[in-house]
Amino acid sequence: MNHQAMALSVEKTSSGRLEIELAVVEMPGLMACRAEFGPSQPLKGARITGSLHMTIQTADHAAAAIARDSASVFAWKGETLQEYWWCTERALDWGSDGGPNLIVDDDGDATLLIHEGVKAEEEYEKTGKIPDPSSTDNAEFQIVLGIIRDSLKVDPKKYHKMKESLFGVSEETTTGVKRLYQMQANGSLLFPAINVNDSVTKSKFDNLYGCRHSLPDGLMRATDVMIAGKFAVVCGYGDVGKGCAAALKSAGARVIVTEIDPICALQALMEGIPVLTLEDIVFEADIFVTTTGNKDIIMVDHMRKMKNNAIVCNIGHFDNEIDMHGLETYPGVKRITIKPQTDRWVFPETGTGIIVLAEGRLMNLGCATGHPSFVMSCSFTNQVIAQLELWNERATGKYEKKVYVLPKHLDEKVAALHLGKLGAKLTKLTPEQAAYISVPTEGPYKPPQYRY
Amino acid sequence: MNHQAMALSVEKTSSGRLEIELAVVEMPGLMACRAEFGPSQPLKGARITGSLHMTIQTADHAAAAIARDSASVFAWKGETLQEYWWCTERALDWGSDGGPNLIVDDDGDATLLIHEGVKAEEEYEKTGKIPDPSSTDNAEFQIVLGIIRDSLKVDPKKYHKMKESLFGVSEETTTGVKRLYQMQANGSLLFPAINVNDSVTKSKFDNLYGCRHSLPDGLMRATDVMIAGKFAVVCGYGDVGKGCAAALKSAGARVIVTEIDPICALQALMEGIPVLTLEDIVFEADIFVTTTGNKDIIMVDHMRKMKNNAIVCNIGHFDNEIDMHGLETYPGVKRITIKPQTDRWVFPETGTGIIVLAEGRLMNLGCATGHPSFVMSCSFTNQVIAQLELWNERATGKYEKKVYVLPKHLDEKVAALHLGKLGAKLTKLTPEQAAYISVPTEGPYKPPQYRY
Amino acid sequence: MNHQAMALSVEKTSSGRLEIELAVVEMPGLMACRAEFGPSQPLKGARITGSLHMTIQTADHAAAAIARDSASVFAWKGETLQEYWWCTERALDWGSDGGPNLIVDDDGDATLLIHEGVKAEEEYEKTGKIPDPSSTDNAEFQIVLGIIRDSLKVDPKKYHKMKESLFGVSEETTTGVKRLYQMQANGSLLFPAINVNDSVTKSKFDNLYGCRHSLPDGLMRATDVMIAGKFAVVCGYGDVGKGCAAALKSAGARVIVTEIDPICALQALMEGIPVLTLEDIVFEADIFVTTTGNKDIIMVDHMRKMKNNAIVCNIGHFDNEIDMHGLETYPGVKRITIKPQTDRWVFPETGTGIIVLAEGRLMNLGCATGHPSFVMSCSFTNQVIAQLELWNERATGKYEKKVYVLPKHLDEKVAALHLGKLGAKLTKLTPEQAAYISVPTEGPYKPPQYRY
Amino acid sequence: MNHQAMALSVEKTSSGRLEIELAVVEMPGLMACRAEFGPSQPLKGARITGSLHMTIQTADHAAAAIARDSASVFAWKGETLQEYWWCTERALDWGSDGGPNLIVDDDGDATLLIHEGVKAEEEYEKTGKIPDPSSTDNAEFQIVLGIIRDSLKVDPKKYHKMKESLFGVSEETTTGVKRLYQMQANGSLLFPAINVNDSVTKSKFDNLYGCRHSLPDGLMRATDVMIAGKFAVVCGYGDVGKGCAAALKSAGARVIVTEIDPICALQALMEGIPVLTLEDIVFEADIFVTTTGNKDIIMVDHMRKMKNNAIVCNIGHFDNEIDMHGLETYPGVKRITIKPQTDRWVFPETGTGIIVLAEGRLMNLGCATGHPSFVMSCSFTNQVIAQLELWNERATGKYEKKVYVLPKHLDEKVAALHLGKLGAKLTKLTPEQAAYISVPTEGPYKPPQYRY
Repeated sequence: MNHQAMALSVEKTSSGRLEIELAVVEMPGLMACRAEFGPSQPLKGARITGSLHMTIQTADHAAAAIARDSASVFAWKGETLQEYWWCTERALDWGSDGGPNLIVDDDGDATLLIHEGVKAEEEYEKTGKIPDPSSTDNAEFQIVLGIIRDSLKVDPKKYHKMKESLFGVSEETTTGVKRLYQMQANGSLLFPAINVNDSVTKSKFDNLYGCRHSLPDGLMRATDVMIAGKFAVVCGYGDVGKGCAAALKSAGARVIVTEIDPICALQALMEGIPVLTLEDIVFEADIFVTTTGNKDIIMVDHMRKMKNNAIVCNIGHFDNEIDMHGLETYPGVKRITIKPQTDRWVFPETGTGIIVLAEGRLMNLGCATGHPSFVMSCSFTNQVIAQLELWNERATGKYEKKVYVLPKHLDEKVAALHLGKLGAKLTKLTPEQAAYISVPTEGPYKPPQYRY
Repeated sequence: MNHQAMALSVEKTSSGRLEIELAVVEMPGLMACRAEFGPSQPLKGARITGSLHMTIQTADHAAAAIARDSASVFAWKGETLQEYWWCTERALDWGSDGGPNLIVDDDGDATLLIHEGVKAEEEYEKTGKIPDPSSTDNAEFQIVLGIIRDSLKVDPKKYHKMKESLFGVSEETTTGVKRLYQMQANGSLLFPAINVNDSVTKSKFDNLYGCRHSLPDGLMRATDVMIAGKFAVVCGYGDVGKGCAAALKSAGARVIVTEIDPICALQALMEGIPVLTLEDIVFEADIFVTTTGNKDIIMVDHMRKMKNNAIVCNIGHFDNEIDMHGLETYPGVKRITIKPQTDRWVFPETGTGIIVLAEGRLMNLGCATGHPSFVMSCSFTNQVIAQLELWNERATGKYEKKVYVLPKHLDEKVAALHLGKLGAKLTKLTPEQAAYISVPTEGPYKPPQYRY
Repeated sequence: MNHQAMALSVEKTSSGRLEIELAVVEMPGLMACRAEFGPSQPLKGARITGSLHMTIQTADHAAAAIARDSASVFAWKGETLQEYWWCTERALDWGSDGGPNLIVDDDGDATLLIHEGVKAEEEYEKTGKIPDPSSTDNAEFQIVLGIIRDSLKVDPKKYHKMKESLFGVSEETTTGVKRLYQMQANGSLLFPAINVNDSVTKSKFDNLYGCRHSLPDGLMRATDVMIAGKFAVVCGYGDVGKGCAAALKSAGARVIVTEIDPICALQALMEGIPVLTLEDIVFEADIFVTTTGNKDIIMVDHMRKMKNNAIVCNIGHFDNEIDMHGLETYPGVKRITIKPQTDRWVFPETGTGIIVLAEGRLMNLGCATGHPSFVMSCSFTNQVIAQLELWNERATGKYEKKVYVLPKHLDEKVAALHLGKLGAKLTKLTPEQAAYISVPTEGPYKPPQYRY
Repeated sequence: MNHQAMALSVEKTSSGRLEIELAVVEMPGLMACRAEFGPSQPLKGARITGSLHMTIQTADHAAAAIARDSASVFAWKGETLQEYWWCTERALDWGSDGGPNLIVDDDGDATLLIHEGVKAEEEYEKTGKIPDPSSTDNAEFQIVLGIIRDSLKVDPKKYHKMKESLFGVSEETTTGVKRLYQMQANGSLLFPAINVNDSVTKSKFDNLYGCRHSLPDGLMRATDVMIAGKFAVVCGYGDVGKGCAAALKSAGARVIVTEIDPICALQALMEGIPVLTLEDIVFEADIFVTTTGNKDIIMVDHMRKMKNNAIVCNIGHFDNEIDMHGLETYPGVKRITIKPQTDRWVFPETGTGIIVLAEGRLMNLGCATGHPSFVMSCSFTNQVIAQLELWNERATGKYEKKVYVLPKHLDEKVAALHLGKLGAKLTKLTPEQAAYISVPTEGPYKPPQYRY
């Protein structure tokens, strides 16, 4: 069994071999990695587990292509939460080999499972206590505890053994990274972690440029509504919000932003975008987009007040940015599915309805095909480079049980790998110029705190 | 049989009743017409034939909805040219009633058939000569002549009778309007025509704002390619080209324009868009879009030189903007259908391929869902108002056998009907202000030559 | 005395010979005219009177340069109205030659004086009545009547003789053109007129592109205020308003528009600009710009309600868009001149003040240097071509006592003369393509009603 | 003598009291500081030396206003380098008090003088050697050494005493900050330093938003040239370059960028801006802008090849981005001063000339009035807050001899102080939401590595 090519072959938008071939041309960074590293097979022998999202439309085809060509796949379209965690547990199981050497993680779920597993095993060793799913209200965490409880009965050292063979994880989401830093802060991190999310070529591309592309794509595919002339609200003006607001503005919408952070708010104003609260405009707006990474942004009480056929969608994070629970349990509310991923929810008092996309989950994944391949090439090239780094340094002690960002020269390398495809020509520093600004002629060119 | 509500109920994007209901909210002009005119039924008794395009995805559903609710429909998905003209002839046949009173036309095909029919009948009456399809090279015109030849045998006065009961046509395309002005110029126009195409609320919306919306929509649905960073060429900088260039620019593409008209070229330059020839950039560009309304814009000899996976598409007019015939008959060329409406054509010498959308036909109809409902509401409201005008004035002699643009106050009315939906508030002229600029307080507010 | 080169040498921004030399490079159309027509001197012998505006900063220098090199000049900085009309009368006086053969007019003042003169002379001949300035409230018209009254006493046929030698006028402003059409409509037009204002290369450049450049220039020079983040109101969304709104938006202001015309209002909405009334936002906005060509747009009652240091300016037309009279006569108002053309007006009730630019007159002329030379090159090339046309056809009867727009092929020629400077390359129509769209291969390429 | 209010009263654009009053309204952050701290006078007793740039137009007036109201001023318009350093030395001299307690620095010059002084005194103490200006080629450093040499003779402990009473410096430029980090790295930093330059509210405002405003302002005031249609090159796509490119693009120029850094290059491409080298386009471009912070960007050999009247200017850093020395010493070159700060340099071989703005120095300061007050309010509020922090903590040991960025909650505070003026309303985090994303409800809201 050979998992090692997996991260290289997950072309996100591939509903079949022909579409994968098209996508390849759009992924110059990954192709450059294949050309550079393919012949020498630097990851040969490594056991790599990947835990990654796919779009609804393409999941099955791409999973099939991967399963056929390169790796075991545990995934299918329309998984329940229970099934999702079953798959995660399966992907970590390398049989008699004991566990993965490296993890490619997304939202930190594989990492979470191992950490919770180790914690439970320690508790069990000390006190004999086994995890109790009913000890938590959180439905998802109940499942996690159930899985750990079941494995404890079979092998009370399973996750301990797993962490022993693990050289590290590379994590690509804001949420996953936040968890890693929390574990680092409280001393519980069990293995080295590379924070790929904060590479410029990951964060700006996945968030800013990716969402600028895929928000209108999702809106158009789901609703066919004209964006020009509409009044749109973007909740949050971080990178995702910036991309969404830019796309809506240039499509001819009137845009306002809501923000908690005064710096981001001032940035919105400098682009001519008013900053107001949701309450100020909830009655008037046509399109609402959540991009915050936080929870409880648009509540059912907001949705009740919206105009007929206002569109409500989330491109930020989990489905808890929009109060789906409040909506689903609103007395007398009626759900009319216009087409898959596009529902009209009608309130009994007013008879007016709102259009909720992708059931409150990420609308660019649910209603469109997620980010374009070029964006994913940037993200995945970071992952590949991080995996190589963890593997190459596995015996050197360079990486401790801490969270590291990818060194800036590697971030610059990812960018450089994508320039040729776009016909760009870089200027070269002379040695005198490099000395004058105190950087190496070959980079890195910026100090760590530089914001781009 | 009652055709009269047809123009009101053709909601373009409706693949079913639920989607039609959504579209209704986006069509405030048409809904205002329904509210204003519905109760009094001003078109009661009128026989109206409509000849209109539908998008590939939605044709069948919408046609079914119309057929069920309001009118006979002769149309299906994937018609051949022969079938298309059979349908056109059928739609003009009102049995013993003799023919339509009014025509809603698109590209002037119904109008053409009647004019050619009358011409052939006159020739036949004078000389006994019947139309000979083999007298022309044009495949489509051969079909038209065949239809007329067949009807001549049955009723040599069919089209003469038809024109007698016809009070006029309202035409909504540039191509159809050009034919009408040519017929007016050479004295052959048989009935009054209202040029709906040149209403501001038609031309700017259908061309500028419509294509600004639907070009990126088509590109994204067909190819999932990231537009940002790409080098795009827009052939033609009329209203369609302006909309396309604006959309591509704001999505982050580098855009250049080709033009024959120095005024339009200067407009492009004032927006920061270089004006070059196709030859200058054919080797380098990633996306080619034709918007000219002319023929032979991108020839197979251009396509041979393009980069691998360059995207070639047309949003201008007919499929002859792109040299599809040259491409199809290029020796050794290979067509690989990636998915419907998205083909890769591989040239034998280079092994590189280009991606052609919608087989060179209108890519926003072929690959997406055409213009959004709000745009169509503007266009169709013009049609409704023109039909009412022709019908109301059918006995007054107001309209001669000439081409008329819709009076400006009606154009302004169409706009006004769409403002409320977008939350706009107009300022009112005082009588003193109206006198000062010499316009009525209620409009029209601009001289005929005003360009907006 | 030889006035004929005047229209060619009025480089607007020239405060001296060096600056004129710079401007020359920016005026490719005029330079092309000089190259094409200079050697043959087609206007040799023509008596041409020009009546044109200059910017406050540069008037004196440019006037001096013209006076030295080419023509008599009657103008100085800071003329009173009385002096302005004295100058206009002087410019029409060619001594014993009797009067001009051609007029280059701006706002139609020279044309007005002749028409009023002829009318008064006819009345005098019939009834012996001489014009009475006190018969009107309009201060400016009182001056006009005074001038005519005085000349009547000297020569009761002065303006009759003048019109006899006059072959026509070319007029470049909206206001002047409107007067011409009114005179044509009521049959009082005394000589042919070419409406240069409605050439695309005049109207779009002088209004749209010119104001997009010179509005922010004027704001920055007058106030140094940061535009980003400000809330700006543009009254009117015609070409001038479109240019202003685009400039403010792209500088980072939040922009709203006021409009009376539903079509223009809908265009604003399609660009994402809200359409509201002045009353809706008078308390909140930071910058107010009038662009309407109408009067009484911002009244003192609005100004009283504005925020402290709100900026109020006009780039549309005359100083009556802003109610300067109401402001000046407001009880207790205090005017504080911050610097020339920038006044703070403080209201007694609130103690808050507003900043009025250029005393309500055109702020781009008053506070900056007007339109850039490239724009003026487009406008003046139209004037030159119109003058040549009137002169060349003076004996052919081609032009009757009507208003004509410049033929489209000449409008296209003006554009073509400006393309080379900007590095553009036009595509050439093949004869087959030209036939297909029914235009000559050399143009004109568009029908008269085309809107660009 | 009381210097303490100085940083608060340097309104940059104030050519007099009236203009200062206008500027006050545009500086909400500084005014909020005045309101918050004015009554309690927290800096009472502190000796503060400021070393700051002023614009050419306003220097004298503003300096006069400061001198009159609050502080000693050593500065005048048109200082030589020698005079500049004399002024710097004077500003550090507090007579018998010994030296400043705090420094507000810009480009690090005051800081440099002290560090070089201390170094020389140490050398002198050890070896008796006095500084020798002729030991360096750098003209400016020769002056610095001369000043130190002279003071050594008077008081060989002058700079040692000075550093003893110094609690720290706050530095606001990239250049100055780079020097500080170098001194920290090699252990030579003599007192605490707060890096104000890397506050988001400083770096983005001073660089991105400030230059977006002041680049076109400078171009228009210096040349009156139309930006639309021109081909512009921006050398460098950091924050300054991003602001410049955005301004030029939205004014209608065709823009290309040159870059050394692949990440910044990829950002340009994502905005549709081609990335090329200067050599690729030196023959064609109309406007060249340097923004790099490096030296030797546009050399005389580039300038020789440019089009006639190409505009060359610098908004990045020092006058060594443009090779002024090479230009001035080019054999046979002719300099024609069109107006102050706008020179045409004519090359003898070609007779063509280029327009150089502000003699290669910062064109927004030389040709316009620098950044608008709102931008300066952001920068100076950071300075005020940094000074207060250094003073308040002077006895606590919180700040060691290191470089600190301003704590993020203070950066957020600066932003918050500027929101009200722009009519913004912030959303408040609930405690649950704050806990969910692990931030305090009152901020700071982002991790240190966040890029905005």
